[in-house]
Amino acid sequence: MTATVYGVGLGPGDPELISVKADRLIRGAGVVAYFHKAGRSSNARAIAAGLLRADVVEIGMDYPVTTEIAFCDPAYNDALRGFYDGCVARLLTHVQQGRDVIVLCEGDPFLYGSFMHLHTRLTGRVPVVVVPGIPGMAGCWTATGTPITWGDDVLTVLPATLDEATLADRMGRADALVIMKVGKNMPKVRRALAAAGLVGRAFYVERGTMPGERVVRLADKPDDDAPYFSMVLVPGEGRRP
Amino acid sequence: MTATVYGVGLGPGDPELISVKADRLIRGAGVVAYFHKAGRSSNARAIAAGLLRADVVEIGMDYPVTTEIAFCDPAYNDALRGFYDGCVARLLTHVQQGRDVIVLCEGDPFLYGSFMHLHTRLTGRVPVVVVPGIPGMAGCWTATGTPITWGDDVLTVLPATLDEATLADRMGRADALVIMKVGKNMPKVRRALAAAGLVGRAFYVERGTMPGERVVRLADKPDDDAPYFSMVLVPGEGRRP
Ligand SMILES: C[S@@+](CC[C@H](N)C(=O)[O-])C[C@H]1O[C@@H](n2cnc3c(N)ncnc32)[C@H](O)[C@@H]1O
Ligand SMILES: C[S@@+](CC[C@H](N)C(=O)[O-])C[C@H]1O[C@@H](n2cnc3c(N)ncnc32)[C@H](O)[C@@H]1O
Repeated sequence: MTATVYGVGLGPGDPELISVKADRLIRGAGVVAYFHKAGRSSNARAIAAGLLRADVVEIGMDYPVTTEIAFCDPAYNDALRGFYDGCVARLLTHVQQGRDVIVLCEGDPFLYGSFMHLHTRLTGRVPVVVVPGIPGMAGCWTATGTPITWGDDVLTVLPATLDEATLADRMGRADALVIMKVGKNMPKVRRALAAAGLVGRAFYVERGTMPGERVVRLADKPDDDAPYFSMVLVPGEGRRP
Repeated sequence: MTATVYGVGLGPGDPELISVKADRLIRGAGVVAYFHKAGRSSNARAIAAGLLRADVVEIGMDYPVTTEIAFCDPAYNDALRGFYDGCVARLLTHVQQGRDVIVLCEGDPFLYGSFMHLHTRLTGRVPVVVVPGIPGMAGCWTATGTPITWGDDVLTVLPATLDEATLADRMGRADALVIMKVGKNMPKVRRALAAAGLVGRAFYVERGTMPGERVVRLADKPDDDAPYFSMVLVPGEGRRP
Protein backbone atom coordinates (compact mmCIF):
# COMPACT_ATOMS: atom_id res chain seq x y z
CA MET A 1 0.00 0.00 0.00
CA THR A 2 2.89 2.44 -0.50
CA ALA A 3 1.74 4.62 -3.33
CA THR A 4 3.86 7.46 -4.64
CA VAL A 5 3.43 11.12 -5.51
CA TYR A 6 5.18 12.03 -8.77
CA GLY A 7 6.03 15.62 -9.61
CA VAL A 8 6.30 15.45 -13.37
CA GLY A 9 7.81 18.20 -15.50
CA LEU A 10 5.88 18.87 -18.72
CA GLY A 11 8.35 21.18 -20.44
CA PRO A 12 7.64 24.62 -21.90
CA GLY A 13 4.28 23.92 -23.53
CA ASP A 14 4.58 21.95 -26.76
CA PRO A 15 3.19 18.49 -25.85
CA GLU A 16 5.95 16.87 -27.93
CA LEU A 17 8.52 18.38 -25.57
CA ILE A 18 7.28 16.18 -22.72
CA SER A 19 9.89 13.54 -21.84
CA VAL A 20 9.35 9.90 -22.70
CA LYS A 21 9.27 9.14 -18.97
CA ALA A 22 6.64 11.79 -18.21
CA ASP A 23 4.62 10.63 -21.23
CA ARG A 24 4.66 7.06 -19.89
CA LEU A 25 3.68 8.12 -16.35
CA ILE A 26 0.85 10.41 -17.48
CA ARG A 27 -0.62 7.86 -19.90
CA GLY A 28 -0.70 5.35 -17.03
CA ALA A 29 -2.03 7.74 -14.40
CA GLY A 30 -5.23 6.97 -12.48
CA VAL A 31 -5.06 10.27 -10.57
CA VAL A 32 -3.56 13.55 -11.78
CA ALA A 33 -3.32 16.86 -9.95
CA TYR A 34 -2.53 20.34 -11.27
CA PHE A 35 -2.51 23.94 -10.15
CA HIS A 36 -4.54 26.65 -11.79
CA LYS A 37 -5.62 30.18 -11.11
CA ALA A 38 -9.13 30.59 -9.74
CA GLY A 39 -11.63 30.65 -12.58
CA ARG A 40 -9.01 29.83 -15.23
CA SER A 41 -8.28 26.51 -16.87
CA SER A 42 -4.98 24.85 -16.02
CA ASN A 43 -2.14 25.33 -18.47
CA ALA A 44 -0.41 22.20 -17.17
CA ARG A 45 -3.53 20.16 -17.81
CA ALA A 46 -3.78 21.60 -21.33
CA ILE A 47 -0.22 20.49 -22.15
CA ALA A 48 -0.92 16.94 -20.98
CA ALA A 49 -4.54 16.73 -22.18
CA GLY A 50 -3.82 14.39 -25.08
CA LEU A 51 -2.24 11.82 -22.76
CA LEU A 52 -4.90 11.57 -20.05
CA ARG A 53 -6.90 8.37 -19.61
CA ALA A 54 -10.64 8.73 -20.14
CA ASP A 55 -11.26 7.52 -16.58
CA VAL A 56 -8.58 9.62 -14.89
CA VAL A 57 -9.45 11.24 -11.55
CA GLU A 58 -8.48 14.93 -11.60
CA ILE A 59 -7.49 17.07 -8.63
CA GLY A 60 -7.62 20.75 -9.55
CA MET A 61 -5.73 22.90 -7.06
CA ASP A 62 -6.85 26.48 -7.57
CA TYR A 63 -4.72 29.25 -6.15
CA PRO A 64 -6.36 31.64 -3.73
CA VAL A 65 -3.94 34.45 -4.83
CA THR A 66 -1.72 35.51 -7.68
CA THR A 67 1.96 34.50 -7.69
CA GLU A 68 3.29 37.30 -9.85
CA ILE A 69 3.82 39.76 -7.03
CA ALA A 70 6.52 39.79 -4.32
CA PHE A 71 4.49 40.02 -1.15
CA CYS A 72 5.91 41.02 2.17
CA ASP A 73 2.42 40.83 3.58
CA PRO A 74 2.26 37.97 6.14
CA ALA A 75 -1.42 37.44 5.32
CA TYR A 76 -0.38 36.46 1.80
CA ASN A 77 2.01 33.85 3.12
CA ASP A 78 -0.61 32.54 5.53
CA ALA A 79 -3.14 32.18 2.74
CA LEU A 80 -0.66 30.29 0.60
CA ARG A 81 0.45 28.09 3.48
CA GLY A 82 -3.12 27.06 4.18
CA PHE A 83 -3.70 26.45 0.48
CA TYR A 84 -0.68 24.15 0.12
CA ASP A 85 -1.55 22.28 3.31
CA GLY A 86 -5.02 21.68 1.90
CA CYS A 87 -3.60 20.43 -1.41
CA VAL A 88 -1.36 17.99 0.42
CA ALA A 89 -4.29 16.65 2.40
CA ARG A 90 -6.19 16.00 -0.84
CA LEU A 91 -3.24 14.17 -2.42
CA LEU A 92 -2.66 12.11 0.74
CA THR A 93 -6.23 10.82 0.67
CA HIS A 94 -5.43 9.07 -2.60
CA VAL A 95 -1.92 7.96 -1.67
CA GLN A 96 -3.11 6.43 1.60
CA GLN A 97 -5.63 4.39 -0.37
CA GLY A 98 -2.80 3.02 -2.50
CA ARG A 99 -3.22 5.24 -5.54
CA ASP A 100 -0.25 7.00 -7.12
CA VAL A 101 -0.82 10.68 -7.84
CA ILE A 102 0.86 12.41 -10.78
CA VAL A 103 1.25 16.15 -10.24
CA LEU A 104 1.51 17.89 -13.62
CA CYS A 105 4.13 20.65 -13.47
CA GLU A 106 4.90 23.29 -16.08
CA GLY A 107 8.53 23.33 -17.17
CA ASP A 108 10.82 21.75 -14.58
CA PRO A 109 9.28 21.05 -11.16
CA PHE A 110 12.29 22.28 -9.11
CA LEU A 111 12.77 25.62 -10.90
CA TYR A 112 10.43 28.13 -9.22
CA GLY A 113 7.68 25.49 -9.36
CA SER A 114 4.59 25.39 -7.16
CA PHE A 115 5.14 21.66 -6.78
CA MET A 116 8.10 22.44 -4.52
CA HIS A 117 5.67 23.52 -1.80
CA LEU A 118 3.98 20.12 -1.96
CA HIS A 119 7.34 18.36 -2.16
CA THR A 120 8.63 19.84 1.13
CA ARG A 121 5.40 18.90 2.87
CA LEU A 122 5.23 15.33 1.48
CA THR A 123 8.90 14.35 1.82
CA GLY A 124 9.39 11.91 4.67
CA ARG A 125 5.67 11.11 4.81
CA VAL A 126 5.11 9.30 1.50
CA PRO A 127 7.41 8.36 -1.39
CA VAL A 128 7.92 11.32 -3.73
CA VAL A 129 9.58 11.06 -7.14
CA VAL A 130 10.46 14.09 -9.26
CA VAL A 131 10.81 13.85 -13.03
CA PRO A 132 12.72 16.81 -14.46
CA GLY A 133 11.31 18.67 -17.46
CA ILE A 134 12.57 21.11 -20.05
CA PRO A 135 12.36 24.47 -18.25
CA GLY A 136 10.20 27.13 -19.87
CA MET A 137 13.34 29.23 -20.37
CA ALA A 138 14.94 26.56 -22.59
CA GLY A 139 11.84 26.56 -24.78
CA CYS A 140 12.01 30.37 -24.91
CA TRP A 141 15.70 30.73 -25.73
CA THR A 142 15.28 28.09 -28.44
CA ALA A 143 12.37 30.14 -29.82
CA THR A 144 14.64 33.21 -30.16
CA GLY A 145 16.92 31.22 -32.48
CA THR A 146 19.92 32.47 -30.48
CA PRO A 147 22.07 30.39 -28.11
CA ILE A 148 21.82 31.69 -24.54
CA THR A 149 25.38 31.06 -23.22
CA TRP A 150 28.79 30.77 -24.91
CA GLY A 151 32.16 29.81 -23.45
CA ASP A 152 32.60 31.46 -20.07
CA ASP A 153 29.32 33.41 -20.05
CA VAL A 154 27.63 33.64 -16.66
CA LEU A 155 23.87 33.07 -16.90
CA THR A 156 21.67 34.94 -14.43
CA VAL A 157 18.03 33.97 -13.97
CA LEU A 158 16.02 36.75 -12.36
CA PRO A 159 12.45 36.75 -11.08
CA ALA A 160 10.85 40.00 -12.24
CA THR A 161 9.22 40.19 -8.82
CA LEU A 162 12.45 41.67 -7.41
CA ASP A 163 12.57 45.44 -6.86
CA GLU A 164 13.76 47.64 -9.70
CA ALA A 165 17.12 48.61 -8.17
CA THR A 166 18.04 44.97 -7.50
CA LEU A 167 16.98 43.99 -10.99
CA ALA A 168 19.08 46.74 -12.60
CA ASP A 169 22.11 45.84 -10.45
CA ARG A 170 21.91 42.15 -11.30
CA MET A 171 21.30 42.86 -14.96
CA GLY A 172 24.36 45.11 -15.10
CA ARG A 173 26.61 42.28 -13.90
CA ALA A 174 25.21 39.56 -16.17
CA ASP A 175 26.62 38.11 -19.40
CA ALA A 176 23.38 36.33 -20.28
CA LEU A 177 19.99 36.93 -18.70
CA VAL A 178 16.65 35.22 -18.30
CA ILE A 179 13.91 37.24 -16.61
CA MET A 180 10.95 35.18 -15.49
CA LYS A 181 7.56 36.02 -13.90
CA VAL A 182 7.32 39.07 -16.16
CA GLY A 183 3.55 39.62 -16.53
CA LYS A 184 2.55 42.82 -14.74
CA ASN A 185 6.21 43.51 -13.94
CA MET A 186 7.00 44.32 -17.56
CA PRO A 187 7.28 48.15 -17.16
CA LYS A 188 9.73 47.65 -14.27
CA VAL A 189 11.72 45.06 -16.25
CA ARG A 190 12.02 47.41 -19.21
CA ARG A 191 13.18 50.31 -17.01
CA ALA A 192 15.78 48.12 -15.27
CA LEU A 193 17.06 46.80 -18.62
CA ALA A 194 17.31 50.38 -19.89
CA ALA A 195 19.32 51.35 -16.80
CA ALA A 196 21.66 48.42 -17.50
CA GLY A 197 21.93 49.37 -21.18
CA LEU A 198 20.49 46.04 -22.33
CA VAL A 199 17.21 46.83 -24.10
CA GLY A 200 18.88 46.55 -27.52
CA ARG A 201 20.08 43.00 -26.85
CA ALA A 202 16.84 41.71 -25.28
CA PHE A 203 14.19 39.38 -26.67
CA TYR A 204 10.62 39.16 -25.43
CA VAL A 205 8.98 35.71 -25.66
CA GLU A 206 5.33 35.09 -24.95
CA ARG A 207 3.95 31.55 -24.63
CA GLY A 208 7.18 29.95 -25.90
CA THR A 209 6.50 26.69 -27.84
CA MET A 210 2.75 27.00 -27.05
CA PRO A 211 -0.09 27.93 -29.43
CA GLY A 212 0.11 31.71 -29.85
CA GLU A 213 3.88 31.86 -29.36
CA ARG A 214 5.27 35.31 -29.96
CA VAL A 215 8.95 36.25 -30.20
CA VAL A 216 10.08 39.83 -30.76
CA ARG A 217 13.05 42.00 -29.97
CA LEU A 218 12.10 43.97 -26.88
CA ALA A 219 13.01 47.18 -28.69
CA ASP A 220 10.30 46.36 -31.25
CA LYS A 221 7.59 45.68 -28.67
CA PRO A 222 5.51 48.85 -28.57
CA ASP A 223 3.73 48.30 -25.24
CA ASP A 224 4.37 46.74 -21.85
CA ASP A 225 1.48 44.29 -21.94
CA ALA A 226 2.64 40.81 -20.98
CA PRO A 227 0.73 37.70 -19.93
CA TYR A 228 1.78 35.30 -17.17
CA PHE A 229 3.64 33.09 -19.67
CA SER A 230 6.16 35.62 -20.83
CA MET A 231 9.87 36.03 -20.42
CA VAL A 232 12.66 38.41 -21.37
CA LEU A 233 16.02 37.00 -22.45
CA VAL A 234 19.38 38.57 -23.18
CA PRO A 235 21.69 36.11 -24.97
CA GLY A 236 25.33 36.02 -23.95
CA GLU A 237 28.05 37.22 -26.29
CA GLY A 238 30.96 35.15 -25.00
CA ARG A 239 33.89 33.53 -26.76
CA ARG A 240 32.96 31.68 -29.95
CA PRO A 241 35.66 30.23 -32.18
CA MET B 1 16.10 18.88 -52.14
CA THR B 2 16.01 21.11 -49.04
CA ALA B 3 17.12 18.87 -46.23
CA THR B 4 17.45 20.11 -42.66
CA VAL B 5 20.00 19.98 -39.86
CA TYR B 6 18.38 19.26 -36.49
CA GLY B 7 20.17 20.05 -33.24
CA VAL B 8 18.39 17.74 -30.86
CA GLY B 9 18.70 17.96 -27.06
CA LEU B 10 18.97 14.58 -25.34
CA GLY B 11 18.57 15.70 -21.74
CA PRO B 12 20.90 14.93 -18.83
CA GLY B 13 21.64 11.27 -19.58
CA ASP B 14 18.75 8.96 -18.69
CA PRO B 15 17.39 7.87 -22.11
CA GLU B 16 13.82 8.16 -20.75
CA LEU B 17 14.41 11.89 -20.25
CA ILE B 18 14.64 12.44 -24.00
CA SER B 19 11.62 14.37 -25.28
CA VAL B 20 8.94 12.67 -27.34
CA LYS B 21 9.92 14.92 -30.24
CA ALA B 22 13.62 14.05 -30.03
CA ASP B 23 12.72 10.38 -29.67
CA ARG B 24 10.66 10.56 -32.87
CA LEU B 25 13.36 12.40 -34.82
CA ILE B 26 16.17 10.08 -33.72
CA ARG B 27 14.20 6.90 -34.45
CA GLY B 28 13.55 8.19 -37.96
CA ALA B 29 17.09 9.46 -38.60
CA GLY B 30 19.08 8.26 -41.60
CA VAL B 31 22.14 10.31 -40.59
CA VAL B 32 23.19 11.24 -37.05
CA ALA B 33 26.19 13.29 -35.95
CA TYR B 34 27.73 13.69 -32.49
CA PHE B 35 30.79 15.16 -30.81
CA HIS B 36 33.25 13.13 -28.82
CA LYS B 37 36.71 13.50 -27.37
CA ALA B 38 39.50 11.92 -29.38
CA GLY B 39 39.81 8.25 -28.52
CA ARG B 40 36.70 8.24 -26.32
CA SER B 41 33.22 7.04 -27.14
CA SER B 42 30.50 9.68 -27.46
CA ASN B 43 28.28 10.23 -24.45
CA ALA B 44 25.55 11.71 -26.64
CA ARG B 45 25.57 8.62 -28.83
CA ALA B 46 25.36 6.42 -25.73
CA ILE B 47 22.23 8.24 -24.52
CA ALA B 48 20.49 7.77 -27.89
CA ALA B 49 21.91 4.32 -28.70
CA GLY B 50 18.64 2.45 -28.10
CA LEU B 51 16.83 4.61 -30.65
CA LEU B 52 19.23 4.43 -33.62
CA ARG B 53 18.20 2.63 -36.79
CA ALA B 54 20.36 -0.37 -37.71
CA ASP B 55 21.25 1.29 -41.03
CA VAL B 56 21.93 4.77 -39.63
CA VAL B 57 24.92 6.66 -41.07
CA GLU B 58 27.01 8.06 -38.22
CA ILE B 59 29.20 11.18 -38.31
CA GLY B 60 31.58 11.20 -35.35
CA MET B 61 33.07 14.64 -34.78
CA ASP B 62 36.10 14.19 -32.55
CA TYR B 63 37.50 17.24 -30.79
CA PRO B 64 41.10 18.14 -31.42
CA VAL B 65 41.36 19.74 -27.93
CA THR B 66 39.72 19.67 -24.52
CA THR B 67 36.92 22.13 -23.73
CA GLU B 68 37.36 22.25 -19.97
CA ILE B 69 39.99 24.99 -19.94
CA ALA B 70 39.56 28.72 -20.63
CA PHE B 71 42.17 29.38 -23.29
CA CYS B 72 43.40 32.81 -24.19
CA ASP B 73 45.82 31.19 -26.61
CA PRO B 74 44.80 32.17 -30.17
CA ALA B 75 46.16 28.85 -31.46
CA TYR B 76 43.47 27.09 -29.43
CA ASN B 77 40.74 29.16 -31.01
CA ASP B 78 42.21 28.57 -34.45
CA ALA B 79 42.25 24.82 -33.91
CA LEU B 80 38.63 24.85 -32.78
CA ARG B 81 37.58 27.11 -35.64
CA GLY B 82 39.11 24.75 -38.18
CA PHE B 83 37.51 21.80 -36.45
CA TYR B 84 34.00 23.30 -36.52
CA ASP B 85 34.40 24.39 -40.14
CA GLY B 86 35.34 20.81 -41.01
CA CYS B 87 32.33 19.41 -39.15
CA VAL B 88 30.03 21.77 -41.03
CA ALA B 89 31.51 20.66 -44.37
CA ARG B 90 30.79 17.03 -43.48
CA LEU B 91 27.18 17.78 -42.50
CA LEU B 92 26.62 19.86 -45.63
CA THR B 93 27.67 16.96 -47.87
CA HIS B 94 24.65 15.04 -46.62
CA VAL B 95 22.24 17.98 -46.55
CA GLN B 96 23.12 18.96 -50.11
CA GLN B 97 22.27 15.43 -51.22
CA GLY B 98 18.82 15.80 -49.64
CA ARG B 99 19.46 13.93 -46.39
CA ASP B 100 18.44 15.39 -43.03
CA VAL B 101 21.14 15.26 -40.37
CA ILE B 102 20.28 14.90 -36.69
CA VAL B 103 22.99 16.28 -34.41
CA LEU B 104 22.76 14.58 -31.00
CA CYS B 105 23.33 17.14 -28.22
CA GLU B 106 23.79 16.50 -24.51
CA GLY B 107 21.34 18.42 -22.33
CA ASP B 108 19.95 21.45 -24.12
CA PRO B 109 21.66 22.48 -27.38
CA PHE B 110 21.67 26.25 -26.69
CA LEU B 111 23.12 26.09 -23.14
CA TYR B 112 26.94 26.00 -23.50
CA GLY B 113 26.51 23.38 -26.23
CA SER B 114 29.03 22.56 -28.96
CA PHE B 115 26.18 22.46 -31.44
CA MET B 116 25.98 26.26 -31.20
CA HIS B 117 29.22 26.49 -33.19
CA LEU B 118 27.63 24.50 -35.99
CA HIS B 119 24.39 26.46 -35.68
CA THR B 120 26.07 29.85 -36.29
CA ARG B 121 27.88 28.45 -39.32
CA LEU B 122 24.83 26.72 -40.82
CA THR B 123 22.19 29.41 -40.24
CA GLY B 124 21.30 31.15 -43.48
CA ARG B 125 22.84 28.38 -45.59
CA VAL B 126 20.52 25.43 -44.88
CA PRO B 127 17.39 25.02 -42.74
CA VAL B 128 18.34 24.44 -39.09
CA VAL B 129 15.86 23.34 -36.41
CA VAL B 130 16.72 23.20 -32.71
CA VAL B 131 14.84 20.91 -30.32
CA PRO B 132 15.35 21.94 -26.68
CA GLY B 133 16.28 19.32 -24.12
CA ILE B 134 16.32 19.01 -20.34
CA PRO B 135 19.58 20.71 -19.36
CA GLY B 136 22.09 18.61 -17.44
CA MET B 137 21.65 20.98 -14.50
CA ALA B 138 17.93 20.15 -14.19
CA GLY B 139 18.81 16.44 -14.01
CA CYS B 140 21.41 17.27 -11.37
CA TRP B 141 19.27 19.46 -9.14
CA THR B 142 16.51 16.86 -9.31
CA ALA B 143 19.10 14.25 -8.23
CA THR B 144 19.91 16.28 -5.10
CA GLY B 145 16.27 16.01 -4.00
CA THR B 146 16.27 19.75 -3.28
CA PRO B 147 14.51 22.46 -5.31
CA ILE B 148 17.00 24.88 -6.82
CA THR B 149 15.08 28.21 -6.66
CA TRP B 150 12.29 29.51 -4.44
CA GLY B 151 10.26 32.71 -4.65
CA ASP B 152 12.57 35.62 -5.53
CA ASP B 153 15.84 33.63 -5.58
CA VAL B 154 18.30 34.68 -8.27
CA LEU B 155 19.89 31.69 -9.99
CA THR B 156 23.46 32.09 -11.21
CA VAL B 157 25.00 29.56 -13.59
CA LEU B 158 28.80 29.71 -13.60
CA PRO B 159 31.30 27.96 -15.83
CA ALA B 160 34.10 26.68 -13.58
CA THR B 161 36.52 27.78 -16.29
CA LEU B 162 36.32 31.37 -14.94
CA ASP B 163 39.21 32.57 -12.78
CA GLU B 164 39.01 32.00 -9.04
CA ALA B 165 38.43 35.63 -8.03
CA THR B 166 35.54 36.02 -10.49
CA LEU B 167 34.03 32.75 -9.31
CA ALA B 168 34.22 33.77 -5.64
CA ASP B 169 32.74 37.20 -6.40
CA ARG B 170 29.81 35.78 -8.38
CA MET B 171 29.22 33.05 -5.79
CA GLY B 172 29.08 35.62 -3.01
CA ARG B 173 26.23 37.49 -4.77
CA ALA B 174 24.14 34.44 -5.66
CA ASP B 175 21.03 33.06 -3.98
CA ALA B 176 21.19 29.76 -5.88
CA LEU B 177 24.18 28.47 -7.83
CA VAL B 178 24.95 25.96 -10.55
CA ILE B 179 28.63 25.47 -11.38
CA MET B 180 29.26 23.64 -14.65
CA LYS B 181 32.40 22.41 -16.44
CA VAL B 182 33.84 21.35 -13.08
CA GLY B 183 36.23 18.48 -13.97
CA LYS B 184 39.83 19.57 -13.44
CA ASN B 185 38.59 22.90 -12.06
CA MET B 186 37.27 21.26 -8.87
CA PRO B 187 40.06 22.49 -6.51
CA LYS B 188 39.47 26.07 -7.72
CA VAL B 189 35.69 25.69 -7.35
CA ARG B 190 36.05 24.45 -3.78
CA ARG B 191 38.37 27.31 -2.82
CA ALA B 192 36.02 29.88 -4.35
CA LEU B 193 33.00 28.36 -2.57
CA ALA B 194 34.95 28.41 0.71
CA ALA B 195 35.77 32.10 0.16
CA ALA B 196 32.05 32.75 -0.37
CA GLY B 197 31.13 30.70 2.72
CA LEU B 198 29.06 28.24 0.69
CA VAL B 199 30.76 24.85 1.01
CA GLY B 200 28.29 23.75 3.69
CA ARG B 201 25.29 24.36 1.40
CA ALA B 202 26.80 22.78 -1.75
CA PHE B 203 26.04 19.48 -3.45
CA TYR B 204 28.38 17.66 -5.80
CA VAL B 205 26.70 15.64 -8.57
CA GLU B 206 28.58 13.33 -10.90
CA ARG B 207 26.91 11.82 -13.98
CA GLY B 208 23.44 13.00 -12.92
CA THR B 209 20.68 10.60 -14.11
CA MET B 210 23.33 8.45 -15.92
CA PRO B 211 24.64 5.02 -14.92
CA GLY B 212 27.13 5.62 -12.08
CA GLU B 213 25.29 8.72 -10.80
CA ARG B 214 26.78 10.02 -7.57
CA VAL B 215 25.29 12.73 -5.34
CA VAL B 216 27.05 13.89 -2.16
CA ARG B 217 27.27 17.01 -0.08
CA LEU B 218 30.45 18.75 -1.13
CA ALA B 219 31.56 18.85 2.52
CA ASP B 220 31.45 15.03 2.52
CA LYS B 221 33.52 14.64 -0.65
CA PRO B 222 37.04 13.84 0.54
CA ASP B 223 38.96 14.61 -2.66
CA ASP B 224 38.81 17.01 -5.59
CA ASP B 225 38.63 14.35 -8.29
CA ALA B 226 35.83 15.13 -10.74
CA PRO B 227 35.06 13.83 -14.22
CA TYR B 228 33.82 15.91 -17.14
CA PHE B 229 30.18 15.17 -16.26
CA SER B 230 30.13 16.76 -12.84
CA MET B 231 28.50 19.79 -11.36
CA VAL B 232 28.29 21.67 -8.08
CA LEU B 233 24.94 23.12 -6.98
CA VAL B 234 23.92 25.40 -4.14
CA PRO B 235 20.13 25.39 -3.71
CA GLY B 236 18.41 28.69 -2.94
CA GLU B 237 16.81 29.35 0.41
CA GLY B 238 14.19 31.91 -0.61
CA ARG B 239 10.65 32.51 0.58
CA ARG B 240 8.61 29.38 1.03
CA PRO B 241 5.16 29.57 2.59
C1 LIG C 1 6.31 30.13 -11.42
S1 LIG C 1 7.43 30.12 -12.79
C2 LIG C 1 7.48 28.38 -13.13
C3 LIG C 1 8.59 28.01 -14.04
C4 LIG C 1 8.59 26.55 -14.47
N1 LIG C 1 8.73 25.65 -13.33
C5 LIG C 1 9.69 26.32 -15.50
O1 LIG C 1 10.56 25.46 -15.29
O2 LIG C 1 9.64 27.00 -16.51
C6 LIG C 1 6.39 30.78 -14.07
C7 LIG C 1 7.13 31.66 -15.07
O3 LIG C 1 7.83 30.85 -15.98
C8 LIG C 1 7.93 31.50 -17.23
N2 LIG C 1 7.54 30.57 -18.30
C9 LIG C 1 7.42 29.23 -18.16
N3 LIG C 1 7.11 28.66 -19.34
C10 LIG C 1 7.05 29.65 -20.25
C11 LIG C 1 6.77 29.68 -21.65
N4 LIG C 1 6.51 28.56 -22.34
N5 LIG C 1 6.79 30.88 -22.28
C12 LIG C 1 7.04 32.02 -21.60
N6 LIG C 1 7.30 32.03 -20.27
C13 LIG C 1 7.31 30.87 -19.59
C14 LIG C 1 7.10 32.77 -17.16
O4 LIG C 1 7.99 33.85 -16.94
C15 LIG C 1 6.25 32.50 -15.94
O5 LIG C 1 5.89 33.71 -15.30
C1 LIG D 1 29.81 21.98 -22.39
S1 LIG D 1 28.64 21.86 -21.10
C2 LIG D 1 27.20 21.31 -22.00
C3 LIG D 1 25.93 21.43 -21.22
C4 LIG D 1 24.72 20.87 -21.91
N1 LIG D 1 24.41 21.54 -23.17
C5 LIG D 1 23.52 20.94 -20.96
O1 LIG D 1 22.50 21.52 -21.31
O2 LIG D 1 23.63 20.38 -19.86
C6 LIG D 1 29.18 20.39 -20.26
C7 LIG D 1 28.99 20.46 -18.75
O3 LIG D 1 27.66 20.19 -18.42
C8 LIG D 1 27.59 19.59 -17.15
N2 LIG D 1 26.71 18.39 -17.23
C9 LIG D 1 25.87 18.14 -18.25
N3 LIG D 1 25.16 17.02 -18.00
C10 LIG D 1 25.56 16.56 -16.79
C11 LIG D 1 25.18 15.45 -15.98
N4 LIG D 1 24.24 14.59 -16.39
N5 LIG D 1 25.79 15.28 -14.79
C12 LIG D 1 26.73 16.16 -14.37
N6 LIG D 1 27.13 17.23 -15.10
C13 LIG D 1 26.55 17.44 -16.30
C14 LIG D 1 29.00 19.29 -16.69
O4 LIG D 1 29.37 20.28 -15.77
C15 LIG D 1 29.77 19.40 -17.98
O5 LIG D 1 31.10 19.81 -17.74
